[in-house]
Amino acid sequence: MRLGELAEQLGGRPLEGDPELCVQGVAPLETGCPRDLGFVRSTQQAAALGATRVGAVIATQGLDVGGRSAIRSLSPSLDFARAARLLVPARRPGAGIHPSAVVDPRAQVEPSACIGPGCVVGAGSRIGPRTVLLARVTLMEEVEVGADGLLYPGVVVGSDTRIGDRVILQAGCVIGADGFGYEWNERGEHEKVPQLGRVVLEDDVEIGANSTVDRARLGTTRIGRGTKIDNLVMVAHGCQIGAHVLIAAMTGLAGGVTLEDRVIMMGQSGSNGHITIGAGSFVAARSGVVEDLPPGSRVWGFPARPERAWHRQVAWLARLPELARRLRRLERRMGPGGGPREPSE
Amino acid sequence: MRLGELAEQLGGRPLEGDPELCVQGVAPLETGCPRDLGFVRSTQQAAALGATRVGAVIATQGLDVGGRSAIRSLSPSLDFARAARLLVPARRPGAGIHPSAVVDPRAQVEPSACIGPGCVVGAGSRIGPRTVLLARVTLMEEVEVGADGLLYPGVVVGSDTRIGDRVILQAGCVIGADGFGYEWNERGEHEKVPQLGRVVLEDDVEIGANSTVDRARLGTTRIGRGTKIDNLVMVAHGCQIGAHVLIAAMTGLAGGVTLEDRVIMMGQSGSNGHITIGAGSFVAARSGVVEDLPPGSRVWGFPARPERAWHRQVAWLARLPELARRLRRLERRMGPGGGPREPSE
Amino acid sequence: MRLGELAEQLGGRPLEGDPELCVQGVAPLETGCPRDLGFVRSTQQAAALGATRVGAVIATQGLDVGGRSAIRSLSPSLDFARAARLLVPARRPGAGIHPSAVVDPRAQVEPSACIGPGCVVGAGSRIGPRTVLLARVTLMEEVEVGADGLLYPGVVVGSDTRIGDRVILQAGCVIGADGFGYEWNERGEHEKVPQLGRVVLEDDVEIGANSTVDRARLGTTRIGRGTKIDNLVMVAHGCQIGAHVLIAAMTGLAGGVTLEDRVIMMGQSGSNGHITIGAGSFVAARSGVVEDLPPGSRVWGFPARPERAWHRQVAWLARLPELARRLRRLERRMGPGGGPREPSE
Repeated sequence: MRLGELAEQLGGRPLEGDPELCVQGVAPLETGCPRDLGFVRSTQQAAALGATRVGAVIATQGLDVGGRSAIRSLSPSLDFARAARLLVPARRPGAGIHPSAVVDPRAQVEPSACIGPGCVVGAGSRIGPRTVLLARVTLMEEVEVGADGLLYPGVVVGSDTRIGDRVILQAGCVIGADGFGYEWNERGEHEKVPQLGRVVLEDDVEIGANSTVDRARLGTTRIGRGTKIDNLVMVAHGCQIGAHVLIAAMTGLAGGVTLEDRVIMMGQSGSNGHITIGAGSFVAARSGVVEDLPPGSRVWGFPARPERAWHRQVAWLARLPELARRLRRLERRMGPGGGPREPSE
Repeated sequence: MRLGELAEQLGGRPLEGDPELCVQGVAPLETGCPRDLGFVRSTQQAAALGATRVGAVIATQGLDVGGRSAIRSLSPSLDFARAARLLVPARRPGAGIHPSAVVDPRAQVEPSACIGPGCVVGAGSRIGPRTVLLARVTLMEEVEVGADGLLYPGVVVGSDTRIGDRVILQAGCVIGADGFGYEWNERGEHEKVPQLGRVVLEDDVEIGANSTVDRARLGTTRIGRGTKIDNLVMVAHGCQIGAHVLIAAMTGLAGGVTLEDRVIMMGQSGSNGHITIGAGSFVAARSGVVEDLPPGSRVWGFPARPERAWHRQVAWLARLPELARRLRRLERRMGPGGGPREPSE
Repeated sequence: MRLGELAEQLGGRPLEGDPELCVQGVAPLETGCPRDLGFVRSTQQAAALGATRVGAVIATQGLDVGGRSAIRSLSPSLDFARAARLLVPARRPGAGIHPSAVVDPRAQVEPSACIGPGCVVGAGSRIGPRTVLLARVTLMEEVEVGADGLLYPGVVVGSDTRIGDRVILQAGCVIGADGFGYEWNERGEHEKVPQLGRVVLEDDVEIGANSTVDRARLGTTRIGRGTKIDNLVMVAHGCQIGAHVLIAAMTGLAGGVTLEDRVIMMGQSGSNGHITIGAGSFVAARSGVVEDLPPGSRVWGFPARPERAWHRQVAWLARLPELARRLRRLERRMGPGGGPREPSE
């Protein structure tokens, strides 16, 4: 693609240098070749421009790029992602049902959809236009998938799940397994509570590899529009996750948690069951939330505490041996005994 | 089903209202319709009874249900679970081997069992009566599965595994992968230790989606009768897990851990290798156990400590900045230097 | 195998007792039979020798084995692992492509390789000599697998992945899923950043069950030669993992982490993104690394601290209630008020 055309397609970005220059791919500055488009956002990154072989860059406004051809951008990361999508279109297989797939005759598959090798599609399931099941995907009964979805190999979607448009399910994720629900019975054993609810994934959701989203006991486990979930995340039964939430890898939400819109949970964090984390809150890596959080909270640690309180606590924690030493010194200076008798604690 | 018949089948529970009322499903009070059975355990939940459309409820003895038809119960959660099972029978596919399944001729499959599409059953494996492999399940060689099992799509069971009756394996779980065992060799490399043991899952075990239970190095990794394991749990090689244990999501047990009967491990907890957690112990969410625990322990935090000690520690931790301030104030009041010389620590 | 022949094959180890004794398997001392070889490394283990029925043992030099036939070794664990490999050869299926496998005509499969039932091999993929795909393995387009690999059921390998020789992928692991990368756009939504890089697994790597290794955004996510990764581990996009690293179960590495050679990360540990953990470092279980670590570091806790500092911190943490009590006692002995005015903090 001509650089001038690319600048145009990105929304008419200002272009420096040769609009006729042809770029065919994207690459890091370190390894790119003259047909590649690079990306430079900071002065620090710009240092790599001396040695790079890339033909052109997308660069922050005003950054010195040493005379190289550049598309200028106020949001270079975003424009670079979009350029990548334009220059390197995703490989998508053609429409149709692979002969090795097992599609129940009571399922409905749009002619423009692709059902790859080894897939299994259960009775009553419906697959929307241009949606791709790559290989060895299993949809059980009455699963509905919207348009333009992309389901990677090994994905399992349980019965009655409803999936919106443009949803991406990475390999091996499991949507709609039974929630973890038991009751003690008269014999002192755990008796399974039937998990009769379902999962709804709204439009533009992405779920990471080997993550699991359990069906509700009775109602719905819901993942809101535009929410992105990383690998090996656990969303337990009955969670209500809002729109545009980000959940990083290995995070676990216990049953019935509500995440309001635009919450961010960083890696290996978690939440107790049946609490609400308010809109726009940020939960730091490895934090464990144990109580409701108001909108806009920023918490760290376990039990999770406000950011500043946690940082002070960690700092004093590191100084605990010193505090203990200073305390002992005071005790020695005060000498033995004396003073009022201490009540027992 | 008639309400009177349902009350009878639940063990002759007392019934208020119309025994001829017909219920066909179960639902939350908020969304149920007149043909649904609801459930109310507490006065708080009973507040929703005003607006509900459900035809009848299972309710705690003595709770005011506003004149609605009610089955009274001393354990309403358990009875509701049982009612759900009676009213909404699980969908199970019919018996037989799907033509797309690959069953080794040396495997034995009971005629009443169901082997779904895309399943692979290895040589020497035996599948008991009425057991269902839903789709794309893999059993390797010499796997034995008892009666009335339910194996969800994508499950992988390694060779020589023995699985009891009524076992449920949720989608994507892996039973019998190699344990993580290496020895340093002369060249300073990790050399794999052959993992020659196996896994035994006793009757009534349930394993969650994408969880992994590794085979022992030589002997047996055992999950005892009635034990329930949630999603994304790791049970390493050689663990000995007792009966009626509960392990919540994302918990990790290192090699050779013993959990005695009825232990409860909450979400994201863990245990060091080769320790024993005594019968009936409770390990709180995100706790890490680092030493043997006597029966009946209740521990929190990492390193895990007794419940009360941990709570006091957390409370004082939050007050660390205040303690430090008070200490400094004392030092200022005492003035500089003086007192006996502090020995270095 | 004759015991004398086994001692020879282990590198000419000294043998006590009957070289003609025939051993056919390996077993723990507790359950072995006379045809089994046992293993005893410590005086403590040697106590079990009284009751054992095993015919012979591999034993540490100089350890009293009560007159039993013994192969003597300076590294008995390693020699026992090797003996196990000699006595119990791994079951490997024969060469060839199972009729139920779907191999793209543009893929290249060595005649000595085995493609098991239900496998899917994409266009442009190449599979080396003697490599085994056991069952239901999916390789997408342009995947290269070297010689003598072993891929367990349910494994998914994304396009463009390059896998070296003698690599073992345990069941359900996912190599080459998209990294978790988004940019906020003008509409306040997360817009997916195309993940165009790939994954390289060097020779002798092993990846555990249901673990995930994401492809890089542009370049390469690399797992170095001889590195072993346990179950349910997350390696995010762009990580650079050196040679002979060990990563235990449930550990998570955020994007762009560098682990130099021979790092050990214990279970449920983690690392912030874009940091470097120096060669030979040890990260204890449940630790979270938040900054660069020099080679040879040993860290514990979260935020991770040097081993000794952490142990002292934990010890003082447990004594916090006592410190608080002592502080209060001093305050009472000093009496009310007085001293210079404390500045507000």
